[in-house]
This record gives sequence, C-alpha cells and structure tokens, in this order.
Amino acid sequence: RERAVAAPGPSAPGAAPPSAQPPPPPFGGSADRRAQRPGPGGAGGGQGPPGGPWEGRESFGRPGADTTEPGGLRRADNTPGRVVQSPPETGRLPWSTGYAEVINAGKSRHNEDQACCEVVYVEGRRSVSGAPREPSPSQQGLCFYYWGLFDGHAGGGAAEMASRLLHRHIREQLKDLVEILQDPSPPPLCLSSTPGTPGSSDPSHLVGPQSCWPSQKEVTHESLVVGAIENAFQLMDEQLAQEQHGHQVEGGCCALVVIYLLGKVYVANAGDSRAIIVRNGEIIPMSREFTPETERQRLQLLGFLKPELLGGEFTHLEFPRRVQSKELGQRMLYRDQNMTGWAYKKIELEDLRFPLVCGEGKKARVMATIGVTRGLGDHNLKVCSSSLPIKPFLSCFPEVRVYDLTQYEHCPDDVLVLGTDGLWDVTSDCEVAATVDRVLSTYEPNDPSRYTALAQALVLGARGTPRDRGWRLPNNKLGSGDDISVFIIPLGGPGSYS
Amino acid sequence: RERAVAAPGPSAPGAAPPSAQPPPPPFGGSADRRAQRPGPGGAGGGQGPPGGPWEGRESFGRPGADTTEPGGLRRADNTPGRVVQSPPETGRLPWSTGYAEVINAGKSRHNEDQACCEVVYVEGRRSVSGAPREPSPSQQGLCFYYWGLFDGHAGGGAAEMASRLLHRHIREQLKDLVEILQDPSPPPLCLSSTPGTPGSSDPSHLVGPQSCWPSQKEVTHESLVVGAIENAFQLMDEQLAQEQHGHQVEGGCCALVVIYLLGKVYVANAGDSRAIIVRNGEIIPMSREFTPETERQRLQLLGFLKPELLGGEFTHLEFPRRVQSKELGQRMLYRDQNMTGWAYKKIELEDLRFPLVCGEGKKARVMATIGVTRGLGDHNLKVCSSSLPIKPFLSCFPEVRVYDLTQYEHCPDDVLVLGTDGLWDVTSDCEVAATVDRVLSTYEPNDPSRYTALAQALVLGARGTPRDRGWRLPNNKLGSGDDISVFIIPLGGPGSYS
Repeated sequence: RERAVAAPGPSAPGAAPPSAQPPPPPFGGSADRRAQRPGPGGAGGGQGPPGGPWEGRESFGRPGADTTEPGGLRRADNTPGRVVQSPPETGRLPWSTGYAEVINAGKSRHNEDQACCEVVYVEGRRSVSGAPREPSPSQQGLCFYYWGLFDGHAGGGAAEMASRLLHRHIREQLKDLVEILQDPSPPPLCLSSTPGTPGSSDPSHLVGPQSCWPSQKEVTHESLVVGAIENAFQLMDEQLAQEQHGHQVEGGCCALVVIYLLGKVYVANAGDSRAIIVRNGEIIPMSREFTPETERQRLQLLGFLKPELLGGEFTHLEFPRRVQSKELGQRMLYRDQNMTGWAYKKIELEDLRFPLVCGEGKKARVMATIGVTRGLGDHNLKVCSSSLPIKPFLSCFPEVRVYDLTQYEHCPDDVLVLGTDGLWDVTSDCEVAATVDRVLSTYEPNDPSRYTALAQALVLGARGTPRDRGWRLPNNKLGSGDDISVFIIPLGGPGSYS
Repeated sequence: RERAVAAPGPSAPGAAPPSAQPPPPPFGGSADRRAQRPGPGGAGGGQGPPGGPWEGRESFGRPGADTTEPGGLRRADNTPGRVVQSPPETGRLPWSTGYAEVINAGKSRHNEDQACCEVVYVEGRRSVSGAPREPSPSQQGLCFYYWGLFDGHAGGGAAEMASRLLHRHIREQLKDLVEILQDPSPPPLCLSSTPGTPGSSDPSHLVGPQSCWPSQKEVTHESLVVGAIENAFQLMDEQLAQEQHGHQVEGGCCALVVIYLLGKVYVANAGDSRAIIVRNGEIIPMSREFTPETERQRLQLLGFLKPELLGGEFTHLEFPRRVQSKELGQRMLYRDQNMTGWAYKKIELEDLRFPLVCGEGKKARVMATIGVTRGLGDHNLKVCSSSLPIKPFLSCFPEVRVYDLTQYEHCPDDVLVLGTDGLWDVTSDCEVAATVDRVLSTYEPNDPSRYTALAQALVLGARGTPRDRGWRLPNNKLGSGDDISVFIIPLGGPGSYS
C-alpha cells in the first residue's frame, strides 16, 4: 500500500523508519516464484500445518504463478517499468477467477501486495459426539475456496507470510466444525472435551430461575464460520508476533479474504482494500475500509481508557489543525471520543501534544505514522524517534460480511471484485461496474479468459499510461502510483467452472 | 420504560432494588402539574440557568399541561385505569405538535415517561470577535424548537429533571455559537479567550512542515450544533450525578430529543426510544436503539480493558446460555469483544462468572440489571447484593442524526414520530406509517388537531383494550403494559404553524 506509513516530518513526533529505506528483499525474489496452483481435490498449498516450520519461505503467494517464466506471471501490456501481469494460463484458477497486478511507481523494489487463491480441504479433527469416527460420504470433510489479497507496508514480510498461511489457520479453525456444519440441526452449544462423553447441549440442564436469561441463544452455522475466520485472523497475527519478536519478518499488511463454503460467500476485511459485488449492473458493497478517520472513535476511546499507551507524547483529543503553544488559553475546536460533532475548548498544556489521530483522507494517520488501522503484523512498528508501540491501536480483527450465493440466480457477468487500495484510490465503485459491463460484454459468456481480461483492464485503468508528468489516466488525472492487485471472482457458475 | 431494570432472580447476581418497591412519588404529584406552554417569543420554561437552584421542582415536564384540570391533561378515551391523555387545547404546542400518553399497567403509581416541548431563545454570550457587541437584526439571538421524550426507570426523578433542564443545557452550549451559526463563512477554528484579541483562525498560522497534517479540517456549522447537543447531554448527566450523590434524585432515563434550528432537524437519541420520519408514505429511520445487544461489543471491550469494573463477579465473554460448574473443561460457544461470530472455547473457572451481557430482546441485560445502555442518570445504580456500580458501562452520549428540512417540499401529512419503547415494542415502523396515513386522511390538512388525534391513535393502538386476560390488541396479542408517550411533529409547515 502507498503512504500507509508516513514519511517523517520535522514537526511531527514520528513516522516509521522503514518507508525511508528500501524494503528488505522479499524471500527469494521474483525469479523464485513457485506455483501455488491447487491440485485435484484441492490439496494446493493448503495442507501444511500452520505454526509449524514455515517451509517454502522462498516461494511467493501470487496465484497461478509459473516457474518457467521470469516473474512467474505473464505480461498483459508492454509498458516499460510497470507491466500489468496475470497468471500465464487464464482460466486455470478455481472458478476461472481472474487476477492481475502491477507494481508501484518506484516506492519499493518489489510489489508489496501479495495474493493467494486456493482450494482447501478440511478434514474433521474428530467426531464431535465422541464416538469412533465412521467416514460417511457426507462427513468426510469439507472443501472451501479461498481468495486473499494482502497489501503490505513497511516491508513485505508480513504480507508474504499471511498470504501463505492465513488460509491454513482458517482450515485449522474449521476442523472442529466439519461435522457440525454438515448437520442441519442447530450447532451444539457445548461439546464434551472427552471423547465418548457427549456434551450437554440440552436446555434442560439450566439450573435455577434466571429472570434475565430464561433461554439459550440460537447460534447459526453461518456465525460459526464467521467466528472461525475471526479467530484465524487473530492466530495469524499472533504467529506474526512470534516471528517479528525475533525480527525475522518485517512490516504489516491489510488482509482482504473471501471464502466460499457450503453455498455462502464470506468476505473478511481488515484494512483498506475493498470488495464489491457487481450483479446485473447493481453494486453491493461487501466490505468497508478501516482507517484513522473511520475508526477515530475506537482509537480515541482506547487512548482515553489507556492513557499509558499515549506515552505522554500524544493527546487522545482531535483538533482540526495542530495547536500552537501561543494559543494556550484560547479556545479551539476539538472532538472527544464520544463526539461526532465539534465544540470549543480552552487550550491547556496537554492539548499541545500531538494528536493520536490527525489528517484527512489518504493523509490521515494514527500517531503520525500509519494510515490504516486494521491488519496483520506491525508488531515492531514504533513512533519515529520514540519507543512507543503503535500496535495496541491496530486491530487484527476483520469485519466479515456474508453473501448467500443460493438466494439469487447469478449470470456469468455477475462478479465479486477484490482490489487493494491502489485500485480504489483512483476508481469509484461505479467506474468498476462500468468496466465490468464493458469488458465482459466483449467476451463470450463461457470464455474463461474474460475474467482475467477484466482484472487486467481494471489494473490498467487505475495505473494509467506514462506521460510527461507521471502516470496519467485518460482524464489526465494522476493514476495510482501504488501497487495494484485485483481479483475477479465470477459468481455465475461455481459448479461449472471449478 | 418497562423491564429496563430486571427483577432479581435467585441465580443472577443482581438486579436493581427500586423496581421491587413502589417508585418514589414524583415531586408534587399529578395535581400539581404546571403548564410549560411557551410564551410569545419562545420564553417558555427555557430561560432559567441550568445548574442553578432548581426552582419549580414541583412542576411536571409534560407539554401543554393545564393547571385547571386534574392531571393537567385531557382524556382521549374513557377506558378505566389507563386513560390516553393529551394537552387540553390541541394545536397550542409549537408547530401544532401532537402529543399523547398513557400510564403503564400497574408497574408504578406514576407515569415514568416525561415529555417536554419548548421554543427556546438563545442570546449570544458575547461577540466572538471581541468587539463590543452591536445588536443587529441578524445577530440578536437564535431560536430553536425543542421536543424531548424521557423514559424513566428505577424511579422517576432523573426523567423529570432531564425533561426540565436538558434544553437549558443545550441553550447554554449554543450561546457561544449564536454569531458563528448566523455567519455563512466557515466557523473559526480558534477563538480568542480575551475580548478584543481576535482568535487565530488563519491557516497561515501553521508552523513548520507537517507531512501528515498539511491543512486544517473543515468544520461545518451543522457539526457545531451536533457537538453542542452532545456536550449538553454530558453536562445534564453530570448535573444528575451531583443530585444523585446526595440521593435527592433517583433513577435514570432514556432521552430522545429533537431540535429544529436554522432549517435543520437534529434528532439525538440515548436509549431505546425511537424516531422515524414518515414522508409521503416512506419511512426514514432517524434513530437507533442502544441496548445490551446492539452495544454488546462496546460493553465487552470496556470490561476487557478495565477488568476492575467487573469486580470479579462478571466475565466480559458472552455465552449463549449460563455456564454450569459441571461443564468445567468442556468446550462451549462464546463471543469475545472483537467477534461477531461464535467459536468454541474450553470452559475455565473464570467463565463460571456471570456474563456482563446476557439475554435476548427485551430481556437482554447489562450485569443482569439494566436493559438499556445509554441515557441520563443511574449514578447510584448498583448490581443487586453488590456494591458494583453499573454506570461506567452506560453512556450518556446520544447519536445525533440530521435532517435538512429545506431539501424537500413537505406536505401536511409528512411527520416526525417520536415514541418511547412502549409504542415500538408492539408497533412496527410500517404499522405506524399506516396509522399516519389512516388518521391524517380523515382530517382536513389545515386542521391543527389532526396531529394530536394521530398521537392518540398510536398510543391507543399500542395500549390495546382491557379484556379477559390483560390489555389486548385487535389481533388478540398483548398490548404494551409500559408507559407510552408519543410526539407527532408535522414537517409540512413550520412557518405556517409556529
């Protein structure tokens, strides 16, 4: 991602050092990219245990990359410097998923975006009922389809590691649920820990009158999958913490992940990537962005409740501009953590500290350093010229939205579009929908290469073409100088494409 | 409000004591209700200083009440016991506002709902520029229209006090803004504290390069009004804290407040009352409810960050039913503060504590005690058989929504409906919209009594009629046994009605 971590300014207390230096080279480099194409039955890269030895460190997470070509991806245009690339064989990714990417305009030597597309098989851990497991056709395991975009900052290590391992954490979390999710009855509230002893999921086990709690809550299968994804994000972040404790892995990343399981699409987002569904020309937002602006109140509340996290350097109050010492005693507009409006307050000494949240739009920052408030990694990120950690203000938890694929008859032009902020910084949802219509209408509905062509068109459209002063869009506005990655997931025919 | 505070159950750690006893009699009693009808120019009850001696304690906050009738309100039906009442002279409230109320079905001797309708004049405090103030026609002050519903619980004192004083706090907060709001230029970011010294609102005063903060934020007039309302709620709550410190005032209340100022309608809600606009048959939600369910994650986060607030009696984790000691070591579904989904965890000793948030729907509770998570007062509210205060989990801050009255040409049938939960527990938004259409179509558009008739119809429809087993609705479902209060604010002709 671009500008996620601020360059240090003389008057700001800090900015992260990594952006001022070239990022550490990604493991292996681009010539070493290895295919992660899923094999039959969906073995793919999804079989290794997460948390185990991180074998295959030198490989990349880009989907469908080929070892025979330099970079593993195929060029989609001939622009020197920033070539749009896609997997060499279109239509080979699950569901005929389209993918394209382009590197940034010089910010780093390597593309800090990572992507992953997998079919993952989940074997049940053990019988829930405790009885010896008898494999029946319906309970032999579960398969989920997985797409992930990881937009790295301050080093590419976290994005690479997450692109390789997050789906394995999800698989681990789902192992306990294999039988439960395939059983149409409501999930048991309690499981026996000892095989052979059935858990007490019976409401008659309730003891005594409980005026405010007379019954048990209904928990859906869907909410178990959501919980599994949420916990997988947390465990991935903890694994990154262990790696970063020894400084083996640098940086952090936004994570936007899609899972298709048992008829439903789960979109989990932690960061400022974005997912939208374009269905019959209509736009359905499937994520929202987490930035210092959208999460201002959460950040301020944390600073208010835990002032030690501000280290005496920051104030949790927001001001519309930097307060100057000569304004002591004057009255200035401010917002506290409970406010959405503004009011005047008398400036006191504490208000001269740098505000926890400042700036607007792409320049908004937490602690003058980072422009995104959710994601994985960043365990070593500190305020510049300070030992103050920023991680306590960042959340690794995604927001998960669910889309029931069975509730609507999708046609081949209905797609789920995933993009890193490089796409969305210069392209509106409506422009994406227009491109979906324009590109797909030029291909036959059953041509599997149409989704790759669409991904390439979106990446090209956001990058622009090199002209006298930078990369320009047709309207002469600046194109995105950031890494840009796009997945196009067709919703019209999972069965026929997979 | 009904069931906001739980009756104590043997197995629950607590419930607030007041609901088990008759509530303290409201100051003065119903025969002493005094009119709060606004005088010409909108003096009304809005002129006294908030925080000063609380004169007029014996009076009620009900709008348009008359001293000559017992109860000050006029009966709208003849049902014994729970008579629907309205102000005696319809059309006398500002904007021809309609109002009706009914007492609960025996929970308390007095109606714990309070209401207030005022025209409030705001005189500017001083010239912002510091120059001696020269009253010009455009800067002589501001007038705002004000409607408030206060749904009391655990005693009626807080609702009464808030109904009498909250608009005065709002007036105080607006005093500084009188000139600023009437000046079309953007609000100054900084005000001089010394009259005669202009504040530095000039962006050229910025010092040094500020990479992440190159410019000042734009603050709108509208957001200043929102900030004024937010701070007024907080100051009202602080005033209640002072009163409750000496136990002069008991209980707490939800507050739903509407302000009309300079062409815009501000709807501020703290609690589970609700406001909707019905416009040309379309429903526009103007508030959302704050309950243990809707605010679960905020409450859990607070319990997680400040475990001392749980006093060793509660766990911040949520479980779908009460955990039993014999389930130690088994695995049960839970939700943590960052989760929207559910997952299994092994039950440990700490999990046997009562959960901070439990129950569903109207039976959801914080600390097994209170069913609403925002409002004013409750400073003395404790967990039953415990000294653990509940107030830290309650927020006095409203959510404020703004509706621009000038953006649409309203007709006389377009109304803003405010109701306490007594209305909404048994009436959907759509049913309210249908009643709006049905009742208003039977009156001439210029008949000012039509809005009172509508308020009465809504209250009657939610109360039902007494039958063999309780108050019943036409569909034979139980009517609301709660206090019910409804305001109907016509949007079609503020100018012509006021």
